[in-house]
Amino acid sequence: MYSIKKILIGTTIVGVICVAGIRKYFYTNKKNDLKTATEAMESQEKFDEKGSVEDFQKGEPKGDTNIAQFAKLVVKTPKGTRDHKPHQMSLRDPVFEKIKAIFKRFGAPCIDTPVFELKEILTGKYGEESKLIYNLEDQGGEKLSLRYDLTVPFARYLAMNKITNFKRYQISKVYRRDNPAMIRGKFREFYQCDFDIAGEYDTMIADSECVAIIASILKALGLPDFTIKINHRLILDGIFDVSGVPVDKFRTVCSSVDKLDKSPWEEVRKEITEQKGIAEEVADKIGKYVKLNGGKELIDELLDNEELRRSTSSKQGLEEMKLLLQYCDFLNVSQNVVFDLSLARGLDYYTGVIYEAVLKATVVENGKNVGIGSVAGGGRYDNLVGVFDPKGKPVPCVGVSIGVERIFAYLEANAATKPRTTETQVLVCSTQKNLLEPKMKIVTELREANINAEILYKANPNILLQLQYGEKNQIPLAIVIGNSEIEKNVVTVRNIATREEEKIPRERLIEKITERLNKL
Amino acid sequence: MYSIKKILIGTTIVGVICVAGIRKYFYTNKKNDLKTATEAMESQEKFDEKGSVEDFQKGEPKGDTNIAQFAKLVVKTPKGTRDHKPHQMSLRDPVFEKIKAIFKRFGAPCIDTPVFELKEILTGKYGEESKLIYNLEDQGGEKLSLRYDLTVPFARYLAMNKITNFKRYQISKVYRRDNPAMIRGKFREFYQCDFDIAGEYDTMIADSECVAIIASILKALGLPDFTIKINHRLILDGIFDVSGVPVDKFRTVCSSVDKLDKSPWEEVRKEITEQKGIAEEVADKIGKYVKLNGGKELIDELLDNEELRRSTSSKQGLEEMKLLLQYCDFLNVSQNVVFDLSLARGLDYYTGVIYEAVLKATVVENGKNVGIGSVAGGGRYDNLVGVFDPKGKPVPCVGVSIGVERIFAYLEANAATKPRTTETQVLVCSTQKNLLEPKMKIVTELREANINAEILYKANPNILLQLQYGEKNQIPLAIVIGNSEIEKNVVTVRNIATREEEKIPRERLIEKITERLNKL
Repeated sequence: MYSIKKILIGTTIVGVICVAGIRKYFYTNKKNDLKTATEAMESQEKFDEKGSVEDFQKGEPKGDTNIAQFAKLVVKTPKGTRDHKPHQMSLRDPVFEKIKAIFKRFGAPCIDTPVFELKEILTGKYGEESKLIYNLEDQGGEKLSLRYDLTVPFARYLAMNKITNFKRYQISKVYRRDNPAMIRGKFREFYQCDFDIAGEYDTMIADSECVAIIASILKALGLPDFTIKINHRLILDGIFDVSGVPVDKFRTVCSSVDKLDKSPWEEVRKEITEQKGIAEEVADKIGKYVKLNGGKELIDELLDNEELRRSTSSKQGLEEMKLLLQYCDFLNVSQNVVFDLSLARGLDYYTGVIYEAVLKATVVENGKNVGIGSVAGGGRYDNLVGVFDPKGKPVPCVGVSIGVERIFAYLEANAATKPRTTETQVLVCSTQKNLLEPKMKIVTELREANINAEILYKANPNILLQLQYGEKNQIPLAIVIGNSEIEKNVVTVRNIATREEEKIPRERLIEKITERLNKL
Repeated sequence: MYSIKKILIGTTIVGVICVAGIRKYFYTNKKNDLKTATEAMESQEKFDEKGSVEDFQKGEPKGDTNIAQFAKLVVKTPKGTRDHKPHQMSLRDPVFEKIKAIFKRFGAPCIDTPVFELKEILTGKYGEESKLIYNLEDQGGEKLSLRYDLTVPFARYLAMNKITNFKRYQISKVYRRDNPAMIRGKFREFYQCDFDIAGEYDTMIADSECVAIIASILKALGLPDFTIKINHRLILDGIFDVSGVPVDKFRTVCSSVDKLDKSPWEEVRKEITEQKGIAEEVADKIGKYVKLNGGKELIDELLDNEELRRSTSSKQGLEEMKLLLQYCDFLNVSQNVVFDLSLARGLDYYTGVIYEAVLKATVVENGKNVGIGSVAGGGRYDNLVGVFDPKGKPVPCVGVSIGVERIFAYLEANAATKPRTTETQVLVCSTQKNLLEPKMKIVTELREANINAEILYKANPNILLQLQYGEKNQIPLAIVIGNSEIEKNVVTVRNIATREEEKIPRERLIEKITERLNKL
């Protein structure tokens, strides 16, 4: 059955009722007063009768058409999702363009994958986060789920096409039934911008490329104040190993450690000991390590550490980390990079280097300053493609995902003025009646010359209304015609902001307007 | 339970089995031999034991991690969907850009809406097509459906935000559980590019703008050989009325008439009489009208028609159609427009003018030439917003949707060569070992100067392999360094296609490369 849904407008719960021809709103907060849509549609069908042509054309049919047969309709977007309005799109579009440009700067082509995958493709890839996957209704066909990220579909793409060597970017929406936190840009539907490198390459070269691309993107977006934390799953595994964590608890302890960016160690320690059943002295040993961060010196120190030297895992991880820091230096990003042992990353599939970029800026949420948090993250996942093609050649991968929604949330909160939402260059106006024909002809001529031009959709609009429309939409130029212009075969060109006007010959319209536009 | 799924590779059904650590392929066509994924995962859990750190790091854990715990995995995209590979994206991207440019040329801003809507928002909007909607699983929250088009979400957006006056474009994917016909570009997931005008305007002005934008887009895409069929729901209603169709059968007869673009009149007549229960003489009367098409003269003829003059509906429709043809003339599109009484459009929500653009070109499918069919369509829907906001001011709308997948299918079939998939301008190469550091520094310098540049992710790659990579990816320039270049503080610039080389001073690298790139 349908559940009763409401929208809050102010503090009043509004239900919208529309029963065949008699439409009414009503305000109520008594849930039982509301008929469900199905109930009402069923009862509706019972007293339907043949109506007149007029009723039908008014959208109030009494026949077999469903339009307007609604009982109650809550008009909102689904929980955790939102529309993007024109002024938001004007802010978002250039950000996507800049990110695309950087992906291309690093030589990546683009692919696209379906919004849903076979459910089994996603099963078992996301550890404790798997419960957040949206499944589709089984409608007698395949079992499908909305994609949770772009990484698993990428691995599926590689395995399906037997590709062992590939670099690509993808910018698409992903879906997570998480608790939304709208202000910090956490939604259930959100864009990810991913760049991944698949293939057997020399140690850390592709990994350093991913760190470099994060830095290039954040700089290109005018967000130079960031830190890229890097760590290595092998180092974490080594720490867990020498601290005494059983192997089968590595990933679950790892996902507790991952919470250190939001929670203090005491809370994480409590989770590890009480929920995950790890001994207190083991937790304390872990705690000693995960508090560390630094650069090359820290790596050297840990390579010398008596305890860690017992783990071949962490030795390999530390050697790789050392090489990565060196490459970061060559790629001119080391000033933004810090080796941080508390970084763990939530997802199960990582096997090597992991990284996360954090903006230093904050936004105001519920009156408090809160950090924007991670705006990019990723790492190495060498076994994921093999899950889809166990017999195939191994396809080690490394990649990065830009969390663009948090960047938008920050940019929106800091936008000085609302940007223009259209790119119209010329508004064609009339000062007298019966001039629709010449206006339509002029607007067509302009558009055919690749000039963005509009008219108002009225036969005889008031000139003031037309110029107001131009001002409101920040259209730079107006072409104004009246009977005297028609007689003299000229048009008046007006700068809408300065109100300065000039008459130009009708036949030199395109040439003159192009000149004017080039000067703006 | 999971259903048994298979992929056909050639004629052999392949199941992929991977049981904890022991991975194997097997070939079978006996369905019962295949364990389902759930069964295998359950039995897997029973004999799981703690494994070694090494097993774990090889992605073959025996602990609580799910990776590689799959029994059988079919690696494909869901039915009726597909990935888009780099060469397809290189074809698609510029098409979207051109369409966006035309939408902006007509003064439209952009909005975006979620991929799913509350199920009730979509219910009852699509007549006989409603069964094709994808529903999401009820996971204890709201009932959701994937959007079926962009029109209903647009109407919901207007009602929700109390907007009565708005023009916008939206380019997004929509979802229909239809029978896929891949070659003609009919998929279950596909893009629509919509332009709509909402608001009370003077008759036919906004409608003619929609017809004009179709023509502009098809011309901009290099597809000048098209016809835009136009008709009017009021004319069809008048024809049904004077022919003797009961009012409650108008929409169902309309959706039969809609099939005339694919089926001959005899089949449609059969459907109308046998399935829809309309008398034969009534069907024959309809048949007489829906075969007609023409221009202004046909409108005048029908305005004079004794029978049709009894219907106020069709009189109004014909008068509006006459005005529309006049406006099409002013907007310079009448050469592509034909008044066609067989055009009906499938969707329920249209109330006025309807139109559809058909390319004259054909594609080869199963060895036969078939028409590409409709590549754009739309019409007036004056009551849809009112369904969502019955008490609000009426918001009449008119819009058009570009069926861009069919256009891609046509362009792909006719593409002479595979386009470049990347935009890399410079490949940085080395002729000797141990030159990763200077290569990384050069590639970073180029990228910081906004030049798209790559290196291979190998420490000491063979020079031939590097140049092959450049040729394969049609990269115009290579920068080649060896020990002698390092010593002399120069780099060699090579035109990869012509093999012509030149040495330039290292410190003038950016200046010289920029010069060379500008000349290409």
